[in-house]
Amino acid sequence: MSVPDATVVKAFLLDLQNRICAGLEQLDGQASFAADSWTRTEGGGGTSRVLTQGAVFEQAGVNFSHVTGAAMPASATAHRPELAGRSFEAMGVSLVIHPKNPYIPTTHANVRFFIAHKDGADPVWWFGGGFDLTPYYPFEEDVREWHQTAKNLCLPFGDDVYPKYKKWCDEYFFLPHRNETRGVGGLFFDDLNQAGFDKSFDFMQAVGNGFLTAYAPIVERRKETPYGERERDFQLYRRGRYVEFNLVYDRGTLFGLQTGGRTESILMSMPPLVRWQYAYTPEAGSPEAELYDNYLKPRDWV
Amino acid sequence: MSVPDATVVKAFLLDLQNRICAGLEQLDGQASFAADSWTRTEGGGGTSRVLTQGAVFEQAGVNFSHVTGAAMPASATAHRPELAGRSFEAMGVSLVIHPKNPYIPTTHANVRFFIAHKDGADPVWWFGGGFDLTPYYPFEEDVREWHQTAKNLCLPFGDDVYPKYKKWCDEYFFLPHRNETRGVGGLFFDDLNQAGFDKSFDFMQAVGNGFLTAYAPIVERRKETPYGERERDFQLYRRGRYVEFNLVYDRGTLFGLQTGGRTESILMSMPPLVRWQYAYTPEAGSPEAELYDNYLKPRDWV
Repeated sequence: MSVPDATVVKAFLLDLQNRICAGLEQLDGQASFAADSWTRTEGGGGTSRVLTQGAVFEQAGVNFSHVTGAAMPASATAHRPELAGRSFEAMGVSLVIHPKNPYIPTTHANVRFFIAHKDGADPVWWFGGGFDLTPYYPFEEDVREWHQTAKNLCLPFGDDVYPKYKKWCDEYFFLPHRNETRGVGGLFFDDLNQAGFDKSFDFMQAVGNGFLTAYAPIVERRKETPYGERERDFQLYRRGRYVEFNLVYDRGTLFGLQTGGRTESILMSMPPLVRWQYAYTPEAGSPEAELYDNYLKPRDWV
Repeated sequence: MSVPDATVVKAFLLDLQNRICAGLEQLDGQASFAADSWTRTEGGGGTSRVLTQGAVFEQAGVNFSHVTGAAMPASATAHRPELAGRSFEAMGVSLVIHPKNPYIPTTHANVRFFIAHKDGADPVWWFGGGFDLTPYYPFEEDVREWHQTAKNLCLPFGDDVYPKYKKWCDEYFFLPHRNETRGVGGLFFDDLNQAGFDKSFDFMQAVGNGFLTAYAPIVERRKETPYGERERDFQLYRRGRYVEFNLVYDRGTLFGLQTGGRTESILMSMPPLVRWQYAYTPEAGSPEAELYDNYLKPRDWV
């Protein structure tokens, strides 16, 4: 197994954050990212970059963090008892984008690297990540293209990679209490190390780099679509599902909040404005019903 | 120990729901409650009553539910292994009120009764409940009166009752990731049965009946207070904390969502409109800072 190199992963992540922010600024055409650097008492820190009230993006948050600790948190060793007592490093880029126009989907992407050290033993490490799309008024063309980009970037790593991580994504971003997927999915992977460091890192880079390739064309295509109060209302309502998922189920969010992570960076994923409405159901045959009927359940797109 | 009588508790709860809805309609002066009755496949059901877009209340939800099951849920027996395998009944009234005017606090109240049956053994039962207040622009007079009403209703049950349940409330409605209490508290009790059924039921009734006594004068006093965009913005922002607490920490919410409760009734607690803003902090010396500095930490009020 090739030797893991945290330095080169970190350099990639910082560069990825820069490139994604630059790409989003270009798509927005108006607003810029502001940056907040922070440190963590227990070790490490990060830089949170946020764009607000843009022409295209109501809010976009792109976090980089690199945290270290003297001992693995209990929650991370429950299913990996062999890691108990090891020191660790975790680093990643995580982003959530809330566009203004309800015809542009919300999206989330994350790539991460974890390494657990122990004197006199080989480090234990793995990669994780993925990206997923949450449309309000979906276009089949957009969803197919999104998944085609995901599939294409997976292909060099094997024919089984896309189906496996597409399925994992559908399963992970699911709200049992609504019996809905969060959106139309994409890729989700974790615990990746079986092919060795170089190949695993290559895949993580392909996912990180693939995100804008997948998202930018959808933004370009939909950003001028006219919309009114009805579409805005539905977008705000559906953003409530995003909040429900992130606060009730998302492991990264809960782990962060419960282990003293930087709250403002973790909750950068929260939409700037959200609506709840008791017992709302879309009118049969409406564009809103189309989302529920055809997109909020796992489906083969490519 | 006096014999528990679920029928009389249920009659009280249904009447309490009626009286609270009538009282809130009177306070609102414009909107009325609509009712949805529902049943649960596993047994039991409830009636959810919701008032929306009133003159005073942006949304008020008052739930009654009475659910039964053949076996205690695992999550409820983890700390009470003696109850494993028993059938159960749970009934309660639960409400959350989101007023329009930012000078009127949001509030929550709940009273509940739980009973676990087993052939040939005495039933195991207990009461729980409480009420708590979440101001945006607090008035010390309101908070003191709220706690005085809470204290007064506790006094007939012993001098130690108010301090004990006031403290429990402060501890329960706390957001560790914000290092803030949810609001200014009130009362929170659970596992109440030590004094026997009659006395315990008396206390639960006192709490249920005390809620409007405590809340109505505050609504009357603040409902005409003029406010502008600044106060509305801050109210929407602070409502985000309510969402964070309910979805991340509230045991009732999580238990309900994870055990197939009626989602729309459980999430009636969600505010109709909510705002998040990255890295917001109130300006020093402002009315918004006053909330953070003097109200979002446990404090003796009476």
